[in-house]
Amino acid sequence: MSDFIEIVDVSPRDGLQSQPVLLSVEHKLELINRLIDAGVRSMEAVSFVNPKRVPQMADAEEVVRGLPQRGDVTFIGLVLNLRGFERAVACNIDEINCAVVASDTFNQRNQGATTEQTMGVIKEITREIQAAGINMGVTVSAAFGCPFEGEMPMEKVVRLVQRLAAMGYTDISLADTIGAAGPSDVAAMVRRIRTLEPALSLSCHFHNTRNTAVANTYAAIQEGVTSFDASCGGVGGCPFAPAATGNVATEDLLYMIHRMGLKTGIDINKIIETAKWLEGPLGTSMPAMLTRAGVFPA
Amino acid sequence: MSDFIEIVDVSPRDGLQSQPVLLSVEHKLELINRLIDAGVRSMEAVSFVNPKRVPQMADAEEVVRGLPQRGDVTFIGLVLNLRGFERAVACNIDEINCAVVASDTFNQRNQGATTEQTMGVIKEITREIQAAGINMGVTVSAAFGCPFEGEMPMEKVVRLVQRLAAMGYTDISLADTIGAAGPSDVAAMVRRIRTLEPALSLSCHFHNTRNTAVANTYAAIQEGVTSFDASCGGVGGCPFAPAATGNVATEDLLYMIHRMGLKTGIDINKIIETAKWLEGPLGTSMPAMLTRAGVFPA
Repeated sequence: MSDFIEIVDVSPRDGLQSQPVLLSVEHKLELINRLIDAGVRSMEAVSFVNPKRVPQMADAEEVVRGLPQRGDVTFIGLVLNLRGFERAVACNIDEINCAVVASDTFNQRNQGATTEQTMGVIKEITREIQAAGINMGVTVSAAFGCPFEGEMPMEKVVRLVQRLAAMGYTDISLADTIGAAGPSDVAAMVRRIRTLEPALSLSCHFHNTRNTAVANTYAAIQEGVTSFDASCGGVGGCPFAPAATGNVATEDLLYMIHRMGLKTGIDINKIIETAKWLEGPLGTSMPAMLTRAGVFPA
Repeated sequence: MSDFIEIVDVSPRDGLQSQPVLLSVEHKLELINRLIDAGVRSMEAVSFVNPKRVPQMADAEEVVRGLPQRGDVTFIGLVLNLRGFERAVACNIDEINCAVVASDTFNQRNQGATTEQTMGVIKEITREIQAAGINMGVTVSAAFGCPFEGEMPMEKVVRLVQRLAAMGYTDISLADTIGAAGPSDVAAMVRRIRTLEPALSLSCHFHNTRNTAVANTYAAIQEGVTSFDASCGGVGGCPFAPAATGNVATEDLLYMIHRMGLKTGIDINKIIETAKWLEGPLGTSMPAMLTRAGVFPA
């Protein structure tokens, strides 16, 4: 087991996208700079999606133009179609992340296409990303359950992961978009995929909707996963999934991970400060528990 | 690994004690009867403590008199001194639970005595309980950290557990009273005690103050623990520990445990209904996540 766990902070994109208050570019860049100052070295900064569907991300290009120029931080942009890919390339983002939802019904609501149609789009985009020599990642969403279809058969997710691996993805993220998984589900899924695709780097993206996200992370770490998405303050949730509030909070994950004796390179107190600051511009309080309770020992 | 996990619902005592609204005896008995109807077969019903310190428990005798007469439910009363023991015996409670705090400072605030002094009191009470032939249990509080002293040395807790085992306790509860533990702390402590005292039944009492309670339960189950305290709705928190809000919610634990394929005999939806009902008399909302998100699949 590696003693380093990578935390990809997704608050600037997944965290903000469903917030009713639109943040200014200045506030978004302040969030990003504060995360970097706290030690975050990988973050989902923007998405290049339809601004009518996700108004919070309409200024993606402007945000990317304002990003600090430094080689030690990876800024990721979410892309769902070729139009988004072109926008991402045009503004020179570090890494492009694609996404497909494991359930057809949810993929239709999210991306207006069946899972198969989106897999076709990803194949096309992937060729372009590879030709452009850009780093790439991909997320399988609703991998542990769909708000419309219910339980997600494990083999359906495994098959999607294998097809994405065959396209050339070496880093694949499993997303529990609606916070349905328990730690035993996560352990079983990760074990199954690692058996079939031992060379693959898996990462996990958990929501705390049903209070299982920290336990799920613990189970995934036990199974060898070393990269996790989390959102500063716990801000976020998918706007197209009912009651899917609750990206797991970066500070809550850090607390558990650091108590395991593992390193993240991130200062939890600076994340807590950032979450408290973010409550101002967003005009809402954060669900993160650490931000209320504080670190132990103080 | 047993496939049955016992949940001891502590909402009638640990849950209610710090609530500013004093519930009527009728409401307390309705809570207890609803928990029984949901399948709870063991619960912390009352404490026999100084009513000036804990006004919510001033009516303990009246509550016990109103308990349903049935042999399949165990009602537990917390006792901190001989006066409390006498009250408990007088009203014929099923089981008496004693408690000692692992840290002196916290034990002073909680019980007005050093840890050693309380160990002496417990020894005295234990003799009386054994002479009276009443079932008994004991809790080591702040076993994973103290709000005043910080980290709790594992060997200090282990030594207390061993001394309590030597007094005749076969069931000992480790309480993370301030929600400081992570799952790796829990696994290490349980493993250590099980090595030294393999015949002992350990149970765990977690608070979700830092979002680790579900993960801690998962880790404890992995180490063979099969009994957990939890509070319907997540109501509760120690009135003498700063920011120690958040007994882990029964429904949140049930969700994770049931997804592991383990049984509890408890209907999670009835617990959710009870938590929602309890919001009325208490005039506050419950922190339980399941009560907001609902069970998956619906």
